[in-house]
Amino acid sequence: MKTLNIGLIGFGTIGSGVVKVLEEKKNELQQKTNCEFRIRAIADKDISSPRCVRVSKDVLTKDVHKILDDPEIDVVIELIGGIHPAKEFVINALKNRKDVITANKALLAEEGEELFRIAAESEKEILFEASVCGGIPIIKTLRQNLFADKIESLSGIVNGTSNYVLSKMEENDWEFEEALAQAKREGIAEADASLDTQGLDSRHKIVILARLIFNANIKLEDIFYQGIENIKLEDLRYAREFGYTIKLLAIAKSFKEGTGGVYVYPALISEKHLLSKVRGAFNALSLKGDVVGELFFYGKGAGMLPTASAVVADLGEIVRSPGYQATRLPVKKAKLKIKKIDELEKSYYIRFLAVDQPGVLAAIAKILGEQGVSIGSVVQKERKEKEIVPIVMMTHYAKEKSVQKALAEIDKLPIVKEKLAIRIEE
Amino acid sequence: MKTLNIGLIGFGTIGSGVVKVLEEKKNELQQKTNCEFRIRAIADKDISSPRCVRVSKDVLTKDVHKILDDPEIDVVIELIGGIHPAKEFVINALKNRKDVITANKALLAEEGEELFRIAAESEKEILFEASVCGGIPIIKTLRQNLFADKIESLSGIVNGTSNYVLSKMEENDWEFEEALAQAKREGIAEADASLDTQGLDSRHKIVILARLIFNANIKLEDIFYQGIENIKLEDLRYAREFGYTIKLLAIAKSFKEGTGGVYVYPALISEKHLLSKVRGAFNALSLKGDVVGELFFYGKGAGMLPTASAVVADLGEIVRSPGYQATRLPVKKAKLKIKKIDELEKSYYIRFLAVDQPGVLAAIAKILGEQGVSIGSVVQKERKEKEIVPIVMMTHYAKEKSVQKALAEIDKLPIVKEKLAIRIEE
Repeated sequence: MKTLNIGLIGFGTIGSGVVKVLEEKKNELQQKTNCEFRIRAIADKDISSPRCVRVSKDVLTKDVHKILDDPEIDVVIELIGGIHPAKEFVINALKNRKDVITANKALLAEEGEELFRIAAESEKEILFEASVCGGIPIIKTLRQNLFADKIESLSGIVNGTSNYVLSKMEENDWEFEEALAQAKREGIAEADASLDTQGLDSRHKIVILARLIFNANIKLEDIFYQGIENIKLEDLRYAREFGYTIKLLAIAKSFKEGTGGVYVYPALISEKHLLSKVRGAFNALSLKGDVVGELFFYGKGAGMLPTASAVVADLGEIVRSPGYQATRLPVKKAKLKIKKIDELEKSYYIRFLAVDQPGVLAAIAKILGEQGVSIGSVVQKERKEKEIVPIVMMTHYAKEKSVQKALAEIDKLPIVKEKLAIRIEE
Repeated sequence: MKTLNIGLIGFGTIGSGVVKVLEEKKNELQQKTNCEFRIRAIADKDISSPRCVRVSKDVLTKDVHKILDDPEIDVVIELIGGIHPAKEFVINALKNRKDVITANKALLAEEGEELFRIAAESEKEILFEASVCGGIPIIKTLRQNLFADKIESLSGIVNGTSNYVLSKMEENDWEFEEALAQAKREGIAEADASLDTQGLDSRHKIVILARLIFNANIKLEDIFYQGIENIKLEDLRYAREFGYTIKLLAIAKSFKEGTGGVYVYPALISEKHLLSKVRGAFNALSLKGDVVGELFFYGKGAGMLPTASAVVADLGEIVRSPGYQATRLPVKKAKLKIKKIDELEKSYYIRFLAVDQPGVLAAIAKILGEQGVSIGSVVQKERKEKEIVPIVMMTHYAKEKSVQKALAEIDKLPIVKEKLAIRIEE
């Protein structure tokens, strides 16, 4: 029987979950692999607060170097989050010839290039199934299971908090703020949820996926992102009338050879698409491979146990394919040109709030027309002369650049008080 | 650069697809693995008909032993289907110390136990991603990606033909026969589609999945199956009124320790469940792991390229984890008691066709009541005295055995002309 000696850095919710799973499943995991998974040390700043699982005091330490410098430890699980000192710990572990498992999406998104280079030099692995979409095994799917395929496009709901907020708005006829407050009460959103609702968390996740999809180094800063704070209940209602719902999407798309698009934005999705059926704090990914065709994955994107499931699956991976596998991540990267958001061509949902007076629609339509943006349909329900009412339109395919130019022009009209454009995904 | 020498047995649609993918993706696959995938020989009874891909004449042979006896060949891909002589070829390949990749679900379902025993003795692998749900990487997910999890339940739409037929009935207001005829015209159903519509193909697939889920030997004969031939358009309509749709499901479920249920039957599924949204010839799997929670997978279950994608992914697996991996399938099997269908407790949709005369409902209800089957709601729309009309009811939770006993009794009533009970899945 082999033994895999594990050092765990970070004994918070996820860390406790990993320990709990390894303890409760000791026999099954051993039987599956003929290997004992032994937690040799757990480092945390706080080693006295009670956790959901009991561990021997000998295992707990405040000194992370008891893990990093221990030659007996084979694999380090990093679960403290954030960039520093997580980055230093990971580098240290790799250089001391330990494999690393991490759930740290921010770290990989911002510093991944350097970390994977050091891993390759050290002939050690960084495994990161838990960093994107928690329990959905999308990393292994992209790295291994879809070996034959080039991924042509991937659209995902990768932030559970935003999806919960949009779902609650739709289900309960709430505005954004009410739904967010509920998410905070239920512990789904943190006190400061801006990373989630502004799309920054989704951006971290899509850059990790996009690097696998394109086998390229992609800079986080090159990824356009936009959040959901400006979406109103009425947008969800109008979308539904047109047969759509609104979801915060993370998108990676292959264009012609050597060009890819990576974006985060809220989008209208047809109610016929499975992504539109994803409610609450769930995650989902819809992708298209050039051989396998369409695939869709759905599951829990966060939480103690789904994340622990991903971390423990990575431990299984290390035992199954021991040693450094040059095959896992090709070291030679492809060159990728990132297509800027304003080079896109899409159809749009546009909502204006404007003073209801003769000529307002004509003025808006004229500006759109001048930019070559053609209107497919218009809805203007409430008519209250001289008051501010919503005007909603769906455009035909148009250039993003033209739409933005038109919107900027329309914004100058004194009768227009507010505007919001949402891209429509086919 | 390593070389993996491949012998392909069966140069039909899937075989041509595999050759096509290996040829078109030669460079990418080589770069990903630092290995050349070389097709050394292709055996088929017919080596003269044109295929979608061109191969050198030197590679083609009618003599399968040019593959099985060639010591240079590392892996044999078996794509001829059926039990004999596929079984003999696979055994021969394993004994000659070649890994085997197969898409042959009937072979694995019926002879898997013996084949996997021989593979273990030969320290060689049988990889079979393509045997279940084509492009959905469910085998790797169960064998590897969900390493931490015990699967508590899995329900799948694993037969595209049946799902296509049910979808067309619903969409076009067709009866079963019309929808099946259309499936045949579109090449989705074979001339004899009975393996699909009677649930036998689903049964082959669920026994393969259930053996992985329970890590147990399960006999094909122990699996209850029921097809969709008796489902009428009106059943789909009534189901919709109650908020359900009807799908042919393959189910594996863990009951208390050591007991599992494995079944194939059509079932009513709530329209809120993602499985209800699966239309046309697609496949989908909904599963629940004790750690990861709920997961859902969707994709193409058949077809040249999705199946080739799975076969080629298995080639990648062989290169990534070369040699015999005792960890892949635990050799020591668990004991599993299979729960018989009549031990189940479920709620039921029941449709009778009965002569509309006073007392008919009372007579039916009396018999159900005597068996302890309690009726939740009844719909009887058409009222044409003395004529045959449908009576539809939804029961509360009841024992399968009691329901079947009641139905047998009701069948004896001269006023009842037809009866159909469909289980409701929660």
